[in-house]
Amino acid sequence: MTAVIVAGIGQTPVGEHWEISLRDLARDAMREAIRDSGGMQPQSLFVGNMLAPSLSNQAHLGPLLADHAHLTGIEAVTLEAAGASGGAALRQGYLAVASGMVDVALVVGVEKFPDRIGAEVETALATTTDSDFEAVQGLTPTAQAAMLMQRYLHEHKVPADGLAGFALIAHANAEGNPNAMFRKSIKLESYVQAPFVNEPLRQFDVAPIADGAAAVVLARAELLPKDPRRPLVRIAGSASTVDTLSLHDRRDLLQFECCRLSSEKALKQAGVPLESLDFFEYHDAYSIYAALALEAVGFAEPGLGWKFAADGGISLSGRIPAATMGGLKARGFPGGATGVYQAVEATMQLQARAGVNQIKDAKCGLIQSIGGPASTVISHVLQTVA
Amino acid sequence: MTAVIVAGIGQTPVGEHWEISLRDLARDAMREAIRDSGGMQPQSLFVGNMLAPSLSNQAHLGPLLADHAHLTGIEAVTLEAAGASGGAALRQGYLAVASGMVDVALVVGVEKFPDRIGAEVETALATTTDSDFEAVQGLTPTAQAAMLMQRYLHEHKVPADGLAGFALIAHANAEGNPNAMFRKSIKLESYVQAPFVNEPLRQFDVAPIADGAAAVVLARAELLPKDPRRPLVRIAGSASTVDTLSLHDRRDLLQFECCRLSSEKALKQAGVPLESLDFFEYHDAYSIYAALALEAVGFAEPGLGWKFAADGGISLSGRIPAATMGGLKARGFPGGATGVYQAVEATMQLQARAGVNQIKDAKCGLIQSIGGPASTVISHVLQTVA
Repeated sequence: MTAVIVAGIGQTPVGEHWEISLRDLARDAMREAIRDSGGMQPQSLFVGNMLAPSLSNQAHLGPLLADHAHLTGIEAVTLEAAGASGGAALRQGYLAVASGMVDVALVVGVEKFPDRIGAEVETALATTTDSDFEAVQGLTPTAQAAMLMQRYLHEHKVPADGLAGFALIAHANAEGNPNAMFRKSIKLESYVQAPFVNEPLRQFDVAPIADGAAAVVLARAELLPKDPRRPLVRIAGSASTVDTLSLHDRRDLLQFECCRLSSEKALKQAGVPLESLDFFEYHDAYSIYAALALEAVGFAEPGLGWKFAADGGISLSGRIPAATMGGLKARGFPGGATGVYQAVEATMQLQARAGVNQIKDAKCGLIQSIGGPASTVISHVLQTVA
Repeated sequence: MTAVIVAGIGQTPVGEHWEISLRDLARDAMREAIRDSGGMQPQSLFVGNMLAPSLSNQAHLGPLLADHAHLTGIEAVTLEAAGASGGAALRQGYLAVASGMVDVALVVGVEKFPDRIGAEVETALATTTDSDFEAVQGLTPTAQAAMLMQRYLHEHKVPADGLAGFALIAHANAEGNPNAMFRKSIKLESYVQAPFVNEPLRQFDVAPIADGAAAVVLARAELLPKDPRRPLVRIAGSASTVDTLSLHDRRDLLQFECCRLSSEKALKQAGVPLESLDFFEYHDAYSIYAALALEAVGFAEPGLGWKFAADGGISLSGRIPAATMGGLKARGFPGGATGVYQAVEATMQLQARAGVNQIKDAKCGLIQSIGGPASTVISHVLQTVA
């Protein structure tokens, strides 16, 4: 199997881009990734998107975005796996190149929450839950997360402000990311005083939905220059797994089983022990997701992920830096683009392009894209080529 | 690259399944395919679906359908490419196995048009066009097809009933398919007397949208028995290409350029000349699509596809049998399931399981899945293993 290299990266700032269309956002990220790759010409385009059919009345993004990037004639298709759509597109790009069928693949994640707000967006987001048994009862992803957090606080006797560490670190890191939505640190008081979104979930426990696009060019190793100007980064492991879609079918609400399973598979394929990871980009759509992911992947004992974060374990100089560019919480959560942002940011760390947020001598990182309450979990191990 | 075998097939009848849910439809097809494969256990599930997020408020089908088939823990993700979603899922299954990363992949296409009819469905279908420039003007896929047909009749001086051949053959073939929606032949008079849907498009020029699910199990050749009870069928070629999404960006409305390009690529990969094909499952969502596909792939000169059909070139005993089990027109058009139905039907032909519709000594077939007006075209060559 051929080695798959991240040959170029691109991203737009994350935020409320009222004046930029979905197709333009995607094009900007794709252009930047192609330019960054030295002008490689992709044969395939894999699009990660979550809600354009519902919120922008726009399905069939493959030809739309390929055409908009002057790439007609190539392959182009959309991957959907709720919040993990970006990770799904990344994995399909990886499989296409790994199969030997495609030399160069372009992966773009894009999301735009257009001129509709509030209930309409929450209704669209609720289509990612089990429509017949969950959404129909009024259960939304945010309500699911609130239930999980309530259970977590109760079961493990966690103080009410116990999960604050995730937001504090994310916001501190976003300060150094010019593409982040919220480039400012917050204090514990801000966390505690913020209003409830859905008790016990407070404002800073929830990542902000936002517009954005990110792209990577993936290529066969043989196509890369022998003497590259930057360290080559390869996708050393890739795994995608699903759990039940609905929470009520889980044996244990607080075990994000597929966070464990998919990271184990990806690490095994890469031949990388957990201890060798230099950073972990988790999917902190909600702070409780971050806690459960840390525990499931194996960085903290069950019930102690919050403590691990509170004690600085995930800070840039901690045991395993997480959300190194602000994470979903403070870089922002552009739906189906998120998993591709993770790949872009991991590549920046591995190529020493992360600026003030640079992790010293980063050689290997794990990124994890989640759809629903870990209903879909897609993990990738990115590594510098020795 | 490992050879990819169609190890099992399954399908539900196509029709109006008011009493069967989307998840049950998909499960029935998946179960049958797994049973047909002798109980192979897939590691990956690729779902082809077009409109469940809009029409059933249900996105994130991967974990939903994997769980419903008792397959949690595996990979599962949805592919969307409008009417070509089934072909897209088939191709991703193919890439996954061809890459060597996955031994056994399950591909399911499913579509359900629930308790909403008429304008709402047409609005949902219109999300597959260019929303900002086409749908916003009221242009739907059917209106696009009417424009193409009008241009075709005018440009090539085709008689008003010139395209009847496609519906006549499709309905004749559907008679012999127990899973078809319309199991009855029609006469030329019925075609001519049918009301206009969108002039010059008459009722029998339009494939009926319908509910249905189809599934295939794809596996590495090494996993198949050395002495199988049926001829082994492999995917010998796979190609996916996109044109502009919008019709107004085309140089020539009547050239389905990507029908040509993707079939050329797939045939080249398979090492199969056009003349060696024993049948062609085209995507006859509209009779004009069938005519343009025949011409683009190379079975008829430009402007003469209708004549080729009228002269019996596509009948079961003709030069290149098409719509051998009824096609979209008479088997029915279950949206994103359609491309997988094609793979199931092609496998039936190649394994001599097509009953009264069996093409004698069929060894090699081309199937083509189309999204929009050939905006996405995905071609596969299926072949018996010598």
